[in-house]
Amino acid sequence: MTLFAELRHACADEWARYVDHPFVRGLADGTLPESCFRHYLVQDYLFLIHFARAYGLAVFKSDNLNDIRQAAAGLSAIVDQEMQLHVAFCRRWALDEDDMAAAPEADATMAYTRYVLEKGLSGDLLDLQTALAPCIVGYGEIGQRLFDNPATRMEGNPYREWIETYAAEEYQAVAAAHVAHMDSLMVRRGGPGRLPSLTTTFRQATRLEASFWDMGLCPPMTSS
Amino acid sequence: MTLFAELRHACADEWARYVDHPFVRGLADGTLPESCFRHYLVQDYLFLIHFARAYGLAVFKSDNLNDIRQAAAGLSAIVDQEMQLHVAFCRRWALDEDDMAAAPEADATMAYTRYVLEKGLSGDLLDLQTALAPCIVGYGEIGQRLFDNPATRMEGNPYREWIETYAAEEYQAVAAAHVAHMDSLMVRRGGPGRLPSLTTTFRQATRLEASFWDMGLCPPMTSS
Amino acid sequence: MTLFAELRHACADEWARYVDHPFVRGLADGTLPESCFRHYLVQDYLFLIHFARAYGLAVFKSDNLNDIRQAAAGLSAIVDQEMQLHVAFCRRWALDEDDMAAAPEADATMAYTRYVLEKGLSGDLLDLQTALAPCIVGYGEIGQRLFDNPATRMEGNPYREWIETYAAEEYQAVAAAHVAHMDSLMVRRGGPGRLPSLTTTFRQATRLEASFWDMGLCPPMTSS
Amino acid sequence: MTLFAELRHACADEWARYVDHPFVRGLADGTLPESCFRHYLVQDYLFLIHFARAYGLAVFKSDNLNDIRQAAAGLSAIVDQEMQLHVAFCRRWALDEDDMAAAPEADATMAYTRYVLEKGLSGDLLDLQTALAPCIVGYGEIGQRLFDNPATRMEGNPYREWIETYAAEEYQAVAAAHVAHMDSLMVRRGGPGRLPSLTTTFRQATRLEASFWDMGLCPPMTSS
Repeated sequence: MTLFAELRHACADEWARYVDHPFVRGLADGTLPESCFRHYLVQDYLFLIHFARAYGLAVFKSDNLNDIRQAAAGLSAIVDQEMQLHVAFCRRWALDEDDMAAAPEADATMAYTRYVLEKGLSGDLLDLQTALAPCIVGYGEIGQRLFDNPATRMEGNPYREWIETYAAEEYQAVAAAHVAHMDSLMVRRGGPGRLPSLTTTFRQATRLEASFWDMGLCPPMTSS
Repeated sequence: MTLFAELRHACADEWARYVDHPFVRGLADGTLPESCFRHYLVQDYLFLIHFARAYGLAVFKSDNLNDIRQAAAGLSAIVDQEMQLHVAFCRRWALDEDDMAAAPEADATMAYTRYVLEKGLSGDLLDLQTALAPCIVGYGEIGQRLFDNPATRMEGNPYREWIETYAAEEYQAVAAAHVAHMDSLMVRRGGPGRLPSLTTTFRQATRLEASFWDMGLCPPMTSS
Repeated sequence: MTLFAELRHACADEWARYVDHPFVRGLADGTLPESCFRHYLVQDYLFLIHFARAYGLAVFKSDNLNDIRQAAAGLSAIVDQEMQLHVAFCRRWALDEDDMAAAPEADATMAYTRYVLEKGLSGDLLDLQTALAPCIVGYGEIGQRLFDNPATRMEGNPYREWIETYAAEEYQAVAAAHVAHMDSLMVRRGGPGRLPSLTTTFRQATRLEASFWDMGLCPPMTSS
Repeated sequence: MTLFAELRHACADEWARYVDHPFVRGLADGTLPESCFRHYLVQDYLFLIHFARAYGLAVFKSDNLNDIRQAAAGLSAIVDQEMQLHVAFCRRWALDEDDMAAAPEADATMAYTRYVLEKGLSGDLLDLQTALAPCIVGYGEIGQRLFDNPATRMEGNPYREWIETYAAEEYQAVAAAHVAHMDSLMVRRGGPGRLPSLTTTFRQATRLEASFWDMGLCPPMTSS
């Protein structure tokens, strides 16, 4: 059993509320209001900036070249590919990069991103990767579940591309590598004594991910 | 004009929403539901723990003995006095310290505290003190305003002690010292070029303080 | 066997070079040139400033009130007592505080202090306390050994006060508390998997302590 | 006048001792003993690991996408190119990567790298880039000066490739970009008030670079 599986099991209620959130159901059947999705996309753009910073932090927290290379590759993937894809994707939703960059950060965006970064700074690399796991691995699980579920509407679903992105082999490999990296860190920096505090971190991060979906459901009155 | 006054002026709308929040009005006229105040007290206890950590961070970020001494004195005030007072105060509201320590952190508590700590780590001591200012100086302003306002109900107001604590000379001196320290840091580490990003930090921290009041108004169904 | 004892055993050669350094022997028999001791005292003053910062960092890295209180008490001991004692002690050696504060930091001072702080930031609280251990616990061992050794000259030894300070019950208690804290952290944040990297940290910190004694033996030509 | 030029001018003595160090002269006329150069190459390999971590830290300390991209590009250049080149270069000097990775870090390597990282964490991005400047910009200046100086021996100089690397247009562009970035940060985060502490940082970093050359001149008895 991987460390990730153990943490996910220990936080089963919070995890269910996150991966089976009404926002996710709205993506699955295509009923999510467009204004919600657009609000989410803008905040996800701001989120990615801090996510890139978290990978920079992981580089700094590494004590060997292998960990540095892994984190640097993740950083490069975000900055050089994921953000480009995100911007292109947003353009199809008529969202301009400069507008997104200038949009005010929602409380939920600040809460999750700063929680992760602060945990990474006060703890060690394993604390950081645990705080990131609900995001990295969770999106993979959501994408896979929606894709595999026959009830998911694919034909004519405006959110089909989003689902396919996270169900794709490429993203699944990223998620699997994260799970493996956590196990490797648990060997080098851990032991069962760390489980209680890692579980707290995982639980809080998962709750903040669910709050990020909540935020997605409540776009501001004026378009951001 | 102090740096604090300048920032407060630049974020006048957010500031007004924070210091004149319905939660504050409920304290002023005593109409705030007790369950809200108790929920707030518990979260404020959790908040103080991270607030102490922020002072520890300020010690680390200091590059001279004076700044170290000032931050160490602030830390000692929180750990040795303020938390004791808070615990004694909470006991009069039938809140037990162990229960408070075990209560789950609300999203709003995580959001503000981690925002401050992360800003302090990614920026410098001036960024940190700016992120702390809405809390430290704002509570002083709220206490003073409520105390000075003839419309504030003092007689029989269950929140009178709270108001008097922050209106007291002792707390006002803490707030004034923070304002002066920010000006001193602006001289040593700053200049007008820093205003845009300091304003963003101040605005976000002020918004997160208002969200903390929002949270206070919405206690969980079961007592925390 | 404590974690400290295990690390000390694993780094026996480096440890011996540190605690039985010519500088230490010169303290024991009183033959250390006065210029060396004065140079050491000045650098030790600068060292204490960063040492206080390390305790501030430990406050920030704490995830519970007990650890915060322990670190805050250590910080207060340094800033309010140890530095005062150090300054009074230095005055008897005709060293003025302002002069010490303005003295250039020796490479060896920068090396050890920044190593500890950086390790504390890139790792977790256990990494930080391990990097501090050669200093905190080592000085206790040196003081005790010199005091217990009948070959140590006490009568008329100009360094008697230094020896007695670190042999005193008060300092021995500080050292013992540090050893106990490391064991407690090893339970909560550790396991055998951490030993290799903790050993590297302990070895490097011990070497840097020995280099600090080396520096003490080589005062600059002009009085610092 | 750039900020870099101002700092270099303020620390003219330390700068001269660094860029005109006997180690550098030994590179210029080819008289540097091979054992010294090999010792330097091994420590430079360990240095690059922490240098990559400093770029990771710069990513974390960035508050906008432009700064993130610049730091991420620098990180990628180190991890994907410079370290590869360094390893290939070392192979021609019969140094194996695994041996280098396992070599003990010299005090001077720890001192400079940890100084930079700690300064970057306690200060802001401008403090970090200032601490890095003697390395990044200084190597460019050294390479250029040796290359331009007719007294430099090129024919048959075993260190010719080293000189040409840092004199090359590609490296000169990296150095120039660093100087420009510092000026841009000074506008956004600075003002004249920062000069005293930036000067201290620049001076200390320059001294630690000179100590790194000192270390290069004193290889351990056994090959590292």
